[in-house]
Amino acid sequence: MEFDCQQFRQELQKRKEFVDGCLEQYLSDRDAFPPVIHQAMHYAVFNGGKRLRPILVFEGASLAGGDRSSVVPAACALEMIHSYSLVHDDLPAMDDDDFRRGKPTCHRVYGEANAILTGDALLTRAFAMLAQNRQIPGVDPLRVLRVIEEVSQAAGSRGMVGGQVLDLESEGKILDEPGLETIHRLKTGELFKAALRAGALLAGMDEAKLNCLDSYARGFGLAFQITDDILDVKGDEALIGKPVGSDEKNNKITYPRLYGLEGAWVLARENVEACLNSLQGFGESADFLRRLALFLLERDS
Amino acid sequence: MEFDCQQFRQELQKRKEFVDGCLEQYLSDRDAFPPVIHQAMHYAVFNGGKRLRPILVFEGASLAGGDRSSVVPAACALEMIHSYSLVHDDLPAMDDDDFRRGKPTCHRVYGEANAILTGDALLTRAFAMLAQNRQIPGVDPLRVLRVIEEVSQAAGSRGMVGGQVLDLESEGKILDEPGLETIHRLKTGELFKAALRAGALLAGMDEAKLNCLDSYARGFGLAFQITDDILDVKGDEALIGKPVGSDEKNNKITYPRLYGLEGAWVLARENVEACLNSLQGFGESADFLRRLALFLLERDS
Repeated sequence: MEFDCQQFRQELQKRKEFVDGCLEQYLSDRDAFPPVIHQAMHYAVFNGGKRLRPILVFEGASLAGGDRSSVVPAACALEMIHSYSLVHDDLPAMDDDDFRRGKPTCHRVYGEANAILTGDALLTRAFAMLAQNRQIPGVDPLRVLRVIEEVSQAAGSRGMVGGQVLDLESEGKILDEPGLETIHRLKTGELFKAALRAGALLAGMDEAKLNCLDSYARGFGLAFQITDDILDVKGDEALIGKPVGSDEKNNKITYPRLYGLEGAWVLARENVEACLNSLQGFGESADFLRRLALFLLERDS
Repeated sequence: MEFDCQQFRQELQKRKEFVDGCLEQYLSDRDAFPPVIHQAMHYAVFNGGKRLRPILVFEGASLAGGDRSSVVPAACALEMIHSYSLVHDDLPAMDDDDFRRGKPTCHRVYGEANAILTGDALLTRAFAMLAQNRQIPGVDPLRVLRVIEEVSQAAGSRGMVGGQVLDLESEGKILDEPGLETIHRLKTGELFKAALRAGALLAGMDEAKLNCLDSYARGFGLAFQITDDILDVKGDEALIGKPVGSDEKNNKITYPRLYGLEGAWVLARENVEACLNSLQGFGESADFLRRLALFLLERDS
C-alpha cells in the first residue's frame, strides 16, 4: 500500500465536508424554541473540527460491508458527544479557555450558564440520535442498544468524563507513563474506540474482527495524543489554532516532557505500527484506516 | 375511591425506600476508578429526594399489566437524569445554591469542575441503564429504543434543558401565565411525562392509553409546580429544606405572584381534577395515580 500524504489530506477534507453536511441536516433546528440554546448547540458543533470520530464510525461500517448512509445518525451522535465535551472542558471552572481553533469558546459567546446547558443538550440529543438508527432498514435493534450502552460507557465516569477528572487532578503533579496513558486512554481513546465499533456493530461485524478494531483504536488514540503533544511543542500556531507551548504553561505532563521530543516520536511510530499490525486480517478494505494511522505522523493540526 | 392522606404518605415512603434500594444496587461502584467522580455521583443521587419519577415509571408499567422488576433500570435512569439536572441547576453559574434539602450542594462538596462532570456522568450513565432494559426477558427492543428517544427529547433542548434556559432568561422579567406554564411544562412536566410513559411503553401499553397518561402527566406536572410555589410562600422550612420565600428573593415569577395564594390553590385543584378525569378509562388499577394527584394538594415538602 502506498501512502501519498497530500492526496490523503484531500480525502480527509472530502470526508470532513460530508460529515459537516450530515451534521447540518441533524442540527437544522437552529431557530427552534428556545432560540438561544439551539443557536449555541449549532455554534458548538460547527467549530472547525476534523470530524475524526464520525469518520471512524463510517469506516467501521464500511469495513463490515455496510453502507455509509446507514450509520449517519450514529456518526453525528459521536461528534455531538465530542463537541459537548469540548464546551464543558473549556468552561472557566475547568480549563478556562477563551478560544478554540481561533474562535471564541461557547461560554464566551453565550455565557457560562448557557454553555453548561448547551453541553448537556448536545449530550442528551446524541442518545436520541443513536436510538434513531432503529429506523434504518436492516439494522438489528439489539445491536443499536448495544451501541448505546458502549457509547455511554466510553463517554461516562469510567471513560471520557473519568479521564477529564484525572486530567484536572493531575495538573501540577508528577505523573509516570502508565498514569499519563490512563488519562489519555479514558479521555480520548475510549471514544475513538466506541466510534469505530459503533459503525462496525451496526453493520453487523463479528466479535473477532471487532477485537482487531479495538487494538487499532488503542494504538490510534495513543498516537493521536502523542502527536498532539508534539504539535504543542513545535506546531504552527496558525494551523493548530492555539498558542504553542500551552501545555507547558498549564503545567501539564506531556509525552515530550516524559520522553523528550525524539523519544515521543519513537513512541508515536510504535503505536502507528501497532495500528497497522492490528489490521492484518482485513486486506485492502482497511487501507483507509492504515493511511489514517500513518497520517498521524504527518499531521500539522 | 377513598383517600387517606396519612396512609398514602406511608405508601409513598415505602415506594421511596424501594427506589433507594434499586439505586444503591445500580450505583454500587462508589469505589470505582477514578474514586472522586463515583463518590460524587453517589452523593448527588442520594439527596433525600422523593423519587417521584421512578415511582411514575413503576406505576406506568403496573398500569400496563407489567411487573415492577422489569423496569428497574428505567426507573433508576429517570432518577439519575433528575439528579444530574439538580447538580447543574445548583452551580454558581446557574442558581448558585449552597444547600439542597439541608445538605451542601455537590459543587460545595466536590468543587465546581467535579460537579459539572458529575452531572455529565449521571446523564451519560442514565442512557446505558435505559439500554440495559434490553436484557429483561419479554421486553421488545424497539420499545426500549423508543423510550430512549422519548426520554432524550424530554430531557433535552426542547424539554428540561430548554425549560432551564427559559427559567434563567426570565429572572427579573415580567411573565404571563402561558409563559410561566411553558417554562414549567418544559422544565419539569416533560420528564414526569417521559417517566410515566417509559414504564408503560416497556410493559406494552397501547397508544390510546398512553394518550390518557399524557393528560395525567400534564395536569400532574402543573399541580406539582403550583403547589411547589405555594410551599415556597407558606411551607415549613424544616420540611422543604430551603428558606421560605426564596423564589421572591430570587425575583422569580410564581403562581401565587400571578394569581394570589387563593387563585393558585384554585388552579392546583383544577389540574388535579384534570388528572382524575384523564384516568376514567382505567378502573381501580389507577387508584395509586389518583391518590398521588390528590396528595399534591396535601404535600408539605
